[in-house]
Amino acid sequence: MELPSKILQDAVDQLATLPGVGKRSALRYALHLLEEEESAVRDLSEAILKLKTDLHHCRYCHNISDTEVCPICANEKRQKNIICVVENVQDVMAIEKTQQYRGLYHVLGGVISPIDGIGVHDLEINSLINRVQSGDPAPVEEVILALPTTMEGDTTNYYINKQLLPFNIKITTLARGVAIGDNLEYADEITLGRSIVGRIPFEG
Amino acid sequence: MELPSKILQDAVDQLATLPGVGKRSALRYALHLLEEEESAVRDLSEAILKLKTDLHHCRYCHNISDTEVCPICANEKRQKNIICVVENVQDVMAIEKTQQYRGLYHVLGGVISPIDGIGVHDLEINSLINRVQSGDPAPVEEVILALPTTMEGDTTNYYINKQLLPFNIKITTLARGVAIGDNLEYADEITLGRSIVGRIPFEG
Repeated sequence: MELPSKILQDAVDQLATLPGVGKRSALRYALHLLEEEESAVRDLSEAILKLKTDLHHCRYCHNISDTEVCPICANEKRQKNIICVVENVQDVMAIEKTQQYRGLYHVLGGVISPIDGIGVHDLEINSLINRVQSGDPAPVEEVILALPTTMEGDTTNYYINKQLLPFNIKITTLARGVAIGDNLEYADEITLGRSIVGRIPFEG
Repeated sequence: MELPSKILQDAVDQLATLPGVGKRSALRYALHLLEEEESAVRDLSEAILKLKTDLHHCRYCHNISDTEVCPICANEKRQKNIICVVENVQDVMAIEKTQQYRGLYHVLGGVISPIDGIGVHDLEINSLINRVQSGDPAPVEEVILALPTTMEGDTTNYYINKQLLPFNIKITTLARGVAIGDNLEYADEITLGRSIVGRIPFEG
């Protein structure tokens, strides 16, 4: 598609870098912005940039935060001796939505992936070890590994577990099994297999 | 959905103003941008703002353009005595894609719509009349009205036609009819009716 303007073309190309946005949608967005007031477009432009310039990471859990310590770490009512280790911000939001967890988090910012060139030092793994070792902001009794069940997630779990062994704390992981409401015949074999091996007492 | 940061929330709210983008997609875009390099996010942010700050409109046809005169009006090979009147930039792009039109355009920037408070003076109608009257940049022999077939489009056609009558030029409109490849039984009555009334000689 040939556009009548390089500035429009640039905006379309840039908008098309958003995940799942093709050139057609990007053009639709750009033409919509063209018809908006300058102040509205400026607001959008600035809000996007602030994501990189103004957003902080919590000094303890490394979750995104507007303040030095995030609201979860700063919340006096949370159990400060349990840390749930997750890959990213989305995972924190998913777990928070369940309202079943009252401990703290530690956001790694990814998982170990030699193929993508992501090693231990690109992730917030050492800061997790330090957090357990120092007991700052609180002594840690349990670390829950809630990383994805991929080879990279497993590798990262293995590495963290090995590093945390000397501290003699409880290390757990999420229960895996057939989702509630799922038919057994549609569950994948690995999940169904794990949920048989990891069966739990029936609460009658 | 409660987000851990007001800055993130702002970015999500702003992205959700794009047409067809809901809060979930907006969050996906924002989290994607969070993981991008600052320079990439700055490029996007600037490209969006430039749509309002740097983009010009062609002094003749009022299509968007990076230059004072757009590439179509500046193209020596186009027929400068025919002007196709359209509602917006998208329409120019749609007609250009057919590669069937070699004349110039005039982009009104909308159609007369009393309900939306859009009158003659909010649109590039007077500049069209002037263009025909002055013969600048070229004497006009034909004006093609290619506005939408809505009540507003018809009103605008009617108004422009009345204003152009004194100049004694050819005023035409797009052929309307059953789309090529369409079954008659699925065509809407108005289109089918118009295509019978406006039937053309068979080219055997």
